[in-house]
Amino acid sequence: MGNVAVLGAGSWGTALAMVLCDNHHQVHLWTHNESQKEIMQTTGKNEKYLPEIQLPENLNIVTDLNHAIENVEAVVFVVPTKAIRETCKKVLPYIKNNMVLIHGSKGIEPHSHYRISEMMAEELEQVTYKGIVALSGPSHAEEVSLKHPTTVTAASDNEFAAQFTQDLFMNEYFRVYTSKDLVGVELGGSLKNIIALGAGISDGLGYGDNAKAALITRGLAEISRLATKLGANPLTFIGLSGVGDLIVTCTSIHSRNWRAGNLFGKGHKLDEVLAQMGMTVEGVRTTEAVNQLSKKLDVEMPITRGIYDVIFNEKSPKDVVDNLMNRDRTTEIEDIASILADRYSD
Amino acid sequence: MGNVAVLGAGSWGTALAMVLCDNHHQVHLWTHNESQKEIMQTTGKNEKYLPEIQLPENLNIVTDLNHAIENVEAVVFVVPTKAIRETCKKVLPYIKNNMVLIHGSKGIEPHSHYRISEMMAEELEQVTYKGIVALSGPSHAEEVSLKHPTTVTAASDNEFAAQFTQDLFMNEYFRVYTSKDLVGVELGGSLKNIIALGAGISDGLGYGDNAKAALITRGLAEISRLATKLGANPLTFIGLSGVGDLIVTCTSIHSRNWRAGNLFGKGHKLDEVLAQMGMTVEGVRTTEAVNQLSKKLDVEMPITRGIYDVIFNEKSPKDVVDNLMNRDRTTEIEDIASILADRYSD
Repeated sequence: MGNVAVLGAGSWGTALAMVLCDNHHQVHLWTHNESQKEIMQTTGKNEKYLPEIQLPENLNIVTDLNHAIENVEAVVFVVPTKAIRETCKKVLPYIKNNMVLIHGSKGIEPHSHYRISEMMAEELEQVTYKGIVALSGPSHAEEVSLKHPTTVTAASDNEFAAQFTQDLFMNEYFRVYTSKDLVGVELGGSLKNIIALGAGISDGLGYGDNAKAALITRGLAEISRLATKLGANPLTFIGLSGVGDLIVTCTSIHSRNWRAGNLFGKGHKLDEVLAQMGMTVEGVRTTEAVNQLSKKLDVEMPITRGIYDVIFNEKSPKDVVDNLMNRDRTTEIEDIASILADRYSD
Repeated sequence: MGNVAVLGAGSWGTALAMVLCDNHHQVHLWTHNESQKEIMQTTGKNEKYLPEIQLPENLNIVTDLNHAIENVEAVVFVVPTKAIRETCKKVLPYIKNNMVLIHGSKGIEPHSHYRISEMMAEELEQVTYKGIVALSGPSHAEEVSLKHPTTVTAASDNEFAAQFTQDLFMNEYFRVYTSKDLVGVELGGSLKNIIALGAGISDGLGYGDNAKAALITRGLAEISRLATKLGANPLTFIGLSGVGDLIVTCTSIHSRNWRAGNLFGKGHKLDEVLAQMGMTVEGVRTTEAVNQLSKKLDVEMPITRGIYDVIFNEKSPKDVVDNLMNRDRTTEIEDIASILADRYSD
C-alpha cells in the first residue's frame, strides 16, 4: 500500500485510479476541472467518461495539484499528448525527488517528434526521479472498470521503476508485464493509430478481411521498421503494445481512428471527416508527423505515405490501395532482420 | 505463361487455380471426385465450395493425375493435412524431376509433429525437385475469387523456388512476398488455430476486447517461442502468416476454430462441440500435438496448456483464464530476444 496520484480524470485515468484503489493504495485523482470534481464527488460517478460505473468510496478526487502529489511515491500522467508539457510545468513546483513517474498517454509531439517520456524528461529535468514508465496495451477503459481481464506492459529504461509499476497495478484482473523497451512501447501505442486509419479506409472501400489483414500486417511491419531505426526492439511489436493494441484498435468500430478512416474510404475529404467526427483524430496528426519522420530517417513507409496522400493530397483511396498492391516484388522481413542482426553483432 | 497443376478443388485450391488462370497460365485443377469434376464442368461452378463464382473457361478440371501433372513446371498441393502423404504417394509415379512443389495447406502431423513440407519431402525423396514452397497468409478463398486485394507469403529454403512462386501468382489483386523462413511460415499457419480457439473461449465467457487481445497477443508470443526453438525466425510472426493470418482467424465469426472455442467458453464439452460443429476442428488436434511438443522441447506455453485442459481435461474455462491472469510476474519479450541474441551471436 502506498500513496499515488493520477493526473487526468478521463476514462483511462479514472479506470487506472480504480485499479489502484482495488489494490488498497491511497489514490488522489486530479482533474483541472472544478465542476467535474464536484459532479464526481456528488454522484459517485464520472458522468462524462464512465457513466455506468460507481467510483470507489476511498478515491480522493482533487483539483489542487499540491494536495494531489504531496507525499506520493508515484505520479501517473494520463492527459492528452498535447497537454503533457503543460501538466509537467504545473507539477514542477510541487514535485519532490525520487518519485516514479508513470504515463498512460499515447502520441508523439508534432515537429519535435518527441515521445511522451522525452517531453516529460525535458520539462522535469530539474527533478531527480526514479525513472519514467510507459503503461500501454490493449485496454478499453470501460472493460478495466468492469474488472474484465486486461493485460498491459510497463516499460522503462529503469528496471526498478518498471517493476515498481508492475507491483503497484497488478491484480487478479489487471496483469502487468515489464519491458525495457520504452522506445518501442511508446512508439507502438502512438503509430498504431495510422494503421487504424488504414484499416478503416480499406473497410470504407468495401474491401474484405484479406485486404484489412494485409494493411494491418504490412503497416505493422513498417512501423516496426521505423521504430527499430529509432532504437526500439522490433519484437516489442509482437507484444501487447504492438499487435495487441492494434487488434483492439483496428477491429473495433468504436475506434475513433478506424471511423475516420472509414469516412476517407467512402470518399470524404479531410474537412468533412473532421467535421463529422467532431473531435480530435490523433491518427491524422500522427500520420503527418510520421510521414515527415520517415523521410528524415530514410525509412520506406509506403502505407503511411499512401494514407498521408489520401488525407492531405486528396488522392483516391482506391488508387492508393491499388498502388500498394502493385509495388515491386519484395521479401517479407529481411529489412528488419538485417537491422537487428547489425545490432546484435555489435 | 506456364503449365501448372493444382491438386485439390476445395475453396482454396479453386481460388488459387483462378488466380493462375488470370495470370494466363495453363492450369489443371485436379479433384479425386469424379462427380465433382462433372458438376464443375457442366455448371461452370464449384457448387460445394465457391457456389457464387463463375469458373474461368480456360480452367482444365481433371481427375486423372497423370494428365494433371504431365508437362507442368509446378505442382500446387491444396489438400487437407491428413491427405498430404496419400496425395504425394499418388503423385509419385507420374512426377518428373526439377519441378517446383508448392503447398497451400496448414497443419502439423500428429505424433511425428512434421510440418507439411517435411511430410512432402519424406514421401517424395526419390524425386529431384527445385524446392518446396509454403504459400500462406490472411486469405479467405471467397475474397480471392472476387479479386479483392490479398497478400500472402511464399516461403522456401530454396530462394529460386520462392521467387518462381511469387512470379507465378503475383498480379494486381494478389500480392506475394517471399521469405526464407519456411519453418516459421508453416508453423504460423498451423499454430494460429490454437489461438483462434482461445479467442473463441474468451468471447464465449463474455469477456471483452481487452481479454481477447491479451489471449491473441500472449498466444502469439508463445507460438513464436516454440517456433523459434524449432528454428523459425520470430520476426516471421509479425508477418502475414503470423499476425496477419491470426487477425483474420480470430476476429472472424466464420472461423471454425473460433466457433468451436466459443462453444467451449459457454461450457460445452468436447463431444458436444464436435457434434455441433459437424466437421473437423483443426485447432483441437493441433492443441494436442503442440501441448506434447512443448513438453518435449521444454518451452513454456501456458495458454496452449490451458486450452488443452479445457478441451481434454474438462477444466472450467473461467478458472483457466483466471489462472493465466495470476501467474508469476514476468517480462514481455526477454525470452524470445535471448534465443535470438544467441542465434545472431553464433
